[in-house]
Amino acid sequence: MANPVDLVEVWRGELLECVHQGHAVICDDTGEIVNAWGDPAAQIFPRSSCKMIQALPLLESGAGAHLTQEQLALSCASHQGAAIHTDRVGAWLRDLGLTDADFRCGPQVPGDQDARHALIRAQAEPCQIHNNCSGKHAGFLTLNKHLGGGADYEKIDHPVQQMGKAAFEETTGETSPAFGIDGCSAPNHACTVHGLARAMAFFASAHDRSDLRSTAALKLRTAMMAYPELVAGETRACTDLMRAMNGRAAIKTGADGVFVAIVPEKRIGVALKIRDGATRASECVIAAILVSLGVLDPNHPAAIARMTPTLKNWRGITVGRVQPAAALRV
Amino acid sequence: MANPVDLVEVWRGELLECVHQGHAVICDDTGEIVNAWGDPAAQIFPRSSCKMIQALPLLESGAGAHLTQEQLALSCASHQGAAIHTDRVGAWLRDLGLTDADFRCGPQVPGDQDARHALIRAQAEPCQIHNNCSGKHAGFLTLNKHLGGGADYEKIDHPVQQMGKAAFEETTGETSPAFGIDGCSAPNHACTVHGLARAMAFFASAHDRSDLRSTAALKLRTAMMAYPELVAGETRACTDLMRAMNGRAAIKTGADGVFVAIVPEKRIGVALKIRDGATRASECVIAAILVSLGVLDPNHPAAIARMTPTLKNWRGITVGRVQPAAALRV
Repeated sequence: MANPVDLVEVWRGELLECVHQGHAVICDDTGEIVNAWGDPAAQIFPRSSCKMIQALPLLESGAGAHLTQEQLALSCASHQGAAIHTDRVGAWLRDLGLTDADFRCGPQVPGDQDARHALIRAQAEPCQIHNNCSGKHAGFLTLNKHLGGGADYEKIDHPVQQMGKAAFEETTGETSPAFGIDGCSAPNHACTVHGLARAMAFFASAHDRSDLRSTAALKLRTAMMAYPELVAGETRACTDLMRAMNGRAAIKTGADGVFVAIVPEKRIGVALKIRDGATRASECVIAAILVSLGVLDPNHPAAIARMTPTLKNWRGITVGRVQPAAALRV
Repeated sequence: MANPVDLVEVWRGELLECVHQGHAVICDDTGEIVNAWGDPAAQIFPRSSCKMIQALPLLESGAGAHLTQEQLALSCASHQGAAIHTDRVGAWLRDLGLTDADFRCGPQVPGDQDARHALIRAQAEPCQIHNNCSGKHAGFLTLNKHLGGGADYEKIDHPVQQMGKAAFEETTGETSPAFGIDGCSAPNHACTVHGLARAMAFFASAHDRSDLRSTAALKLRTAMMAYPELVAGETRACTDLMRAMNGRAAIKTGADGVFVAIVPEKRIGVALKIRDGATRASECVIAAILVSLGVLDPNHPAAIARMTPTLKNWRGITVGRVQPAAALRV
């Protein structure tokens, strides 16, 4: 088992102020490792980076056959609770004949500034629809209605979650050794960084196959790339980088330093985990890898803002920079 | 030169999800290391953890002879812009015959929720007085008025900053190899973790000496412990832990994973740096070290909340925990 390696450096003036270590794997559609940093066998929680896997049963079951591309993008989203997200999830809930109280994701203050300030000005509390996972949960509720399952759709032994677990283990090619409860109360299954990259390569090569799961994977990755603003939101890395790549890759962040990428033209999947959980580092590494794969222009402002951002202080003065560590600069 | 060591673990369910590495030093008043983790010679930026050092010239010069304990606590503070902070800094500014425009720290959205929401409801922008460093800058302005210096008191070659650098090098016992520009635009000088702990031991043993600098150090550490709510604010680690220790230690956080402690009864100084910059880790480590030194009750709610906090999700369900790594559990 290899150690994590230095992946990201944070400089202030001429001193290296912080370092982020981690693991990353680039995997092809046969499941073989193309390139790796650190330990491909490290066990991680994918967190929200595996939402497109969790959404597979929604389509495979037929429950989501009527859903729009926008709804499919939201089912894979960690959105920031902006009006473009909550309006669509709200309409979806009404289509299901359900209300905010049927969610099990919990209320979350929206990341979107306009939505957050509107709540504060109205002296209102956030609802469950504002939770960044409410699109995923609308997908769970859609599947659950189709199955006729109980209201506790987030429980590990509920059919919705058991179907999600099967899809997860089959696409990662691994038996998950453990699960944790995610921020949104859904189970999150552990896998290796290699396994997560393997699952992404399954999505990346889905257009080569016509089986039910591959068809579902193709629909989901296509929806993510068609509506990058629904997968995250304005100013967010997933949205900005997918827009910059213009259909050449689907990417997804996960809490505590996870990021994945699906690169259809190369039938390649990418997964990475920053050991300390820092988002500034996971964003830097995914951008560096996408540049190295030739699908992200290193000169695009969105690439620069994530891969080699400058650090500015409260007066807007540049005081430092983030950059990929030597292992990623080759 | 030793490598950083694992200091903090973050568990979700039964899987170790994140690890934070770093360096820590406990130093006595002769400058000798009592205990250390990682590399005592690692060069770091202390960031806001050295504000009590930066405030020494304010008292040594005589400029701050008239200041209250509250003002001295604010001069060492990274406050959260609550009314208790901005009211006092505002009055201080008026005493100086100056206005918000004389600050060079830059405007910052206050960390205090009431203050932040009040600005949002008023559709108002934050001012420089809301900057977490405005107390330190009020101290700089007080010293500058005494010196009759130019308005650009934050510049590296300004007498205010040159006096600060001398105090920093003399208390750390090191020639600083580099400086960076901090979030508040003031220079921040690099030192080793050992050097920073040595400076804290100087503060911790100040009551043994009667020289000008030691007298200043004693006044500052006493003010910090007398007004813990002015050094940070409600819900913050510095405030909560200093209250829990009830005068047995002064502590101070710094951005990007730094924390220091001054323990007068043991004439001991502590300094630590989390390599990745995570605050959740620096708080855990400082609490663990203070417990090990016998000045923080491990069963106090404030100690538990920083050293072994549970992680709760959006529905309030416990999903994981933070804990000191093995190296700190001995």
